[in-house]
Amino acid sequence: MTDNTYCVIMAGGIGSRFWPKSRRSKPKQFLDILGTGKSFIRATFERFAATVPAENFLVVTNRSYKDLVLEHIPELAEHQVLCEPIGRNTAPCIAYAAYTLRKTSPDARMIVTPADHLILNETDFRAVIEESLDFAGRRDVLMTVGIKPSRPDTGYGYIQMSDGEAFSRVKCFTEKPNLELAQTFVECGEFLWNSGIFIWKVSSIIEAFSRHLPEYHTLFSSIMDDLATEREAAAIERVFSECKAISIDYGVMEKADNVYVRCGDFGWSDVGTWGSVYQLARKDRYANAKSNDGCYTYDTRNSIISLPEGKIAVVNGLNDYIVVDTDDVLMICPRSEEQSIKKYIDDVKFDKGDRHI
Amino acid sequence: MTDNTYCVIMAGGIGSRFWPKSRRSKPKQFLDILGTGKSFIRATFERFAATVPAENFLVVTNRSYKDLVLEHIPELAEHQVLCEPIGRNTAPCIAYAAYTLRKTSPDARMIVTPADHLILNETDFRAVIEESLDFAGRRDVLMTVGIKPSRPDTGYGYIQMSDGEAFSRVKCFTEKPNLELAQTFVECGEFLWNSGIFIWKVSSIIEAFSRHLPEYHTLFSSIMDDLATEREAAAIERVFSECKAISIDYGVMEKADNVYVRCGDFGWSDVGTWGSVYQLARKDRYANAKSNDGCYTYDTRNSIISLPEGKIAVVNGLNDYIVVDTDDVLMICPRSEEQSIKKYIDDVKFDKGDRHI
Repeated sequence: MTDNTYCVIMAGGIGSRFWPKSRRSKPKQFLDILGTGKSFIRATFERFAATVPAENFLVVTNRSYKDLVLEHIPELAEHQVLCEPIGRNTAPCIAYAAYTLRKTSPDARMIVTPADHLILNETDFRAVIEESLDFAGRRDVLMTVGIKPSRPDTGYGYIQMSDGEAFSRVKCFTEKPNLELAQTFVECGEFLWNSGIFIWKVSSIIEAFSRHLPEYHTLFSSIMDDLATEREAAAIERVFSECKAISIDYGVMEKADNVYVRCGDFGWSDVGTWGSVYQLARKDRYANAKSNDGCYTYDTRNSIISLPEGKIAVVNGLNDYIVVDTDDVLMICPRSEEQSIKKYIDDVKFDKGDRHI
Repeated sequence: MTDNTYCVIMAGGIGSRFWPKSRRSKPKQFLDILGTGKSFIRATFERFAATVPAENFLVVTNRSYKDLVLEHIPELAEHQVLCEPIGRNTAPCIAYAAYTLRKTSPDARMIVTPADHLILNETDFRAVIEESLDFAGRRDVLMTVGIKPSRPDTGYGYIQMSDGEAFSRVKCFTEKPNLELAQTFVECGEFLWNSGIFIWKVSSIIEAFSRHLPEYHTLFSSIMDDLATEREAAAIERVFSECKAISIDYGVMEKADNVYVRCGDFGWSDVGTWGSVYQLARKDRYANAKSNDGCYTYDTRNSIISLPEGKIAVVNGLNDYIVVDTDDVLMICPRSEEQSIKKYIDDVKFDKGDRHI
């Protein structure tokens, strides 16, 4: 444990790809979709709590989730939850945390992590994080953690290493390639999955913002007096309404020339889709993943069935389906069609408003 | 209205073919599966109330449904609900009512009807019932109402007429024929569907019991002093434990030589299966029958979807399916597999007990 290490958990997503289980009122990061016994955000906190003291966590989230964050991580004080008035992608989220730390702990090292990923091997993971903290703490670099790819996944971003070192300079980033390109990436051995976990000194990321997103630097620098005061919420509201929505990858990482990647191989998934939940889940002998023991299947294979606690389901004659039942919404959908979930949400919202979203 | 006409509604079924919507605690006859705005038993009562005064109804049901009956037909007094200790098919049910009427109204004419059928043309139906009452009131006959078949349904029993008269002597009964036989039946014009609606004088059915089910006659005659007294429940408990379970068709109608059928053509269904509900329901342009306006279908055809009130369903890629969702059980099943429902019930019951049955 080191007192000048901070962990920033990004927890503002609405998890629409997991609708109808994930709802705007309680999105994916607050759910236990894999049945591990812990919500994603709770597991994320515990994973980093081995390295970072509880008082050095910041969670950046939508202000409507503040109470949920404090409920899932009661170790936090209220001021450790930074409330976004509106989601504007990862760059403003990270800037909010970085400029806050610039004021309170300018010498800090900073880990940034999504709230809703899965790590299987926590020991190896912790070693990678601590080595990366050590590396980034001694240099003016922007570190990202890359994952050794196990398959040509077209849903992930890829990072090309410039050499085979444990800490390699990054040659380039590629967002969601097509299958052919992904296969080439995996075969050539130079590419890693982009985990979205970053490690840097506060001074390094502030320097990067000032260089690559100067309008951010101007906006956030203008409210330094307001941060960590009772004027913070109003100041942040103004800044967020003025700054453009952009990801940290597009806005900073792809432009900077001091980006390094640390390769990790510890069983990682962004658990981004029902398909990935299916891949990760324990399956019965007909390859069905069932959320509870009330699920009776007949002539049904390769399907994922998620039910509310205590509910019974009898499912006959489905192959390669997703069945998600909740108290007020039931979804039955071929696994190959899960990208249609956004359309379902739009259709239901058009007729019924936000009630079921 | 005539004071010596009685209507006996048989309402003891458990409706397992409509599981999971129909439950042992509230079976089919108390539900509005077709969305007509009335439960089956309420609609049955109202249909006959045009011909029979409310105080002349008897409902025979399992004792656990007594309160439900009184809730759905508040016009009834408690003594009009005859409580079976156990379901023993239709012969004991009808005997219970018949021997009760023998004591209280020995000159009565008696209609017997299931509680859970659908009649579309109530005016024509009423005419058939009243003509049949008139016919049976003047003769020592056992009348049954037969339905002009509209298709070679293999789920119904058939009645062969001996002539083309409006009131025809019955030549024979045939239970659920195979498709080939059913087609022959429909083509030759001599066969009617067996509606399970009977009309006779109390004296005629008592005479028929004494001749064709003499053990019933002995048993029920032995408790005449107890019927309509505070000793009735105990006496009926004893009789039901001793009498064999048999249908009125097998036990009486197929043996008697004074059976007549009145042909009716008024839009009738026993609504015996989800398939028949599908046939009767209004369907959208993709031939889907949906229970409410919260049902969103994509690439889905020829399916029936039944939801709890207010629930949303998104259904993609089902063809010829039954989807029935309730608060605690979801069933997804090809329409061609609905005879498996009994197996589903057994499987769930084996693991979970009666809770979801």
